[in-house]
Amino acid sequence: MNYCSQCGGPVALTVPPDDDRPRYVCPACGTVHYQNPKLVVGCIPIWEERILMCRRNIEPRKGFWTLPAGFLENDETVAAGARRETFEETGSRVTDLAPYLMVDIVYIHQIYMMYRCRLQAPDFHPTRESSEVKLVAEAEIPWDEIAFPVIEKTLHHYLLDWSTGRFSFRTDRIDAPPKSLQQKR
Amino acid sequence: MNYCSQCGGPVALTVPPDDDRPRYVCPACGTVHYQNPKLVVGCIPIWEERILMCRRNIEPRKGFWTLPAGFLENDETVAAGARRETFEETGSRVTDLAPYLMVDIVYIHQIYMMYRCRLQAPDFHPTRESSEVKLVAEAEIPWDEIAFPVIEKTLHHYLLDWSTGRFSFRTDRIDAPPKSLQQKR
Repeated sequence: MNYCSQCGGPVALTVPPDDDRPRYVCPACGTVHYQNPKLVVGCIPIWEERILMCRRNIEPRKGFWTLPAGFLENDETVAAGARRETFEETGSRVTDLAPYLMVDIVYIHQIYMMYRCRLQAPDFHPTRESSEVKLVAEAEIPWDEIAFPVIEKTLHHYLLDWSTGRFSFRTDRIDAPPKSLQQKR
Repeated sequence: MNYCSQCGGPVALTVPPDDDRPRYVCPACGTVHYQNPKLVVGCIPIWEERILMCRRNIEPRKGFWTLPAGFLENDETVAAGARRETFEETGSRVTDLAPYLMVDIVYIHQIYMMYRCRLQAPDFHPTRESSEVKLVAEAEIPWDEIAFPVIEKTLHHYLLDWSTGRFSFRTDRIDAPPKSLQQKR
């Protein structure tokens, strides 16, 4: 951040009065520009004991497999965002959403909220964001081609709970980028 | 938003390519300025069956009672944010945090995440943000002086689950400001 989005003047990184950490502050108009983590919302869509996965058609990690997820938008509930992302990435409509897993990814300022849910029908198709969309049984999960660690974690949690038949709300965290991504930088 | 925080040029509200909603976009440098909901994180701190509440010493709703909560910051987990806010507002240290209630407040672009937790010790005190901090039994909750509807909801959920002895992760939503706040506008 270089300039004030309110008045256009240059901002300074400084600790405002009654605050305890540096913020981008505009010396001209006084606006404090807070920067906060973003919520990424998504689904584990299920149809007859199989999981709907999609192959990314966009960067980052184009060509790798993921669960539908994306940034929560203003003017939508968390569940509505998860449903929207699932439709955008897989063309499918989901129902019976249950909050399932919250993952802190502090180093990129993201919080994931993943829902368990059911497909309304086995209707899905490739989209602008997904070159391939398919239902996979546990044995068919492409573990070597998963796009992001948070998706790997989500699948592991889900399969563990699935094996016991008891699902409860879970939390997890990812503290550093995977080596494969670090090497790319 | 009027100006680009990257280059300082005026922004335009327009739908970017491959997007489906208007964003503030900088025609000069091409930056898209996404705006997303913020997470507010807080606690229901318990000591010997009483709830730690605080009287707000800052606007909005100065003088009204609340549970400790505030905006999640970058570089902290959701639970760490809830612990920090509780310390800042009540001077107390909490432990055994369990995610308890997520509330969509779509019209102000906020998602609340409230934790159940225990005080490490009955140590708390007024702070810059709270003119009074105290442990209240169920019968002592100041229902007519609660700062925000989300706090009222949190207390109601908690007391209901407390009465049955069974706590599970819950969700709720608030779709419009309370009449008392609407009249103020």
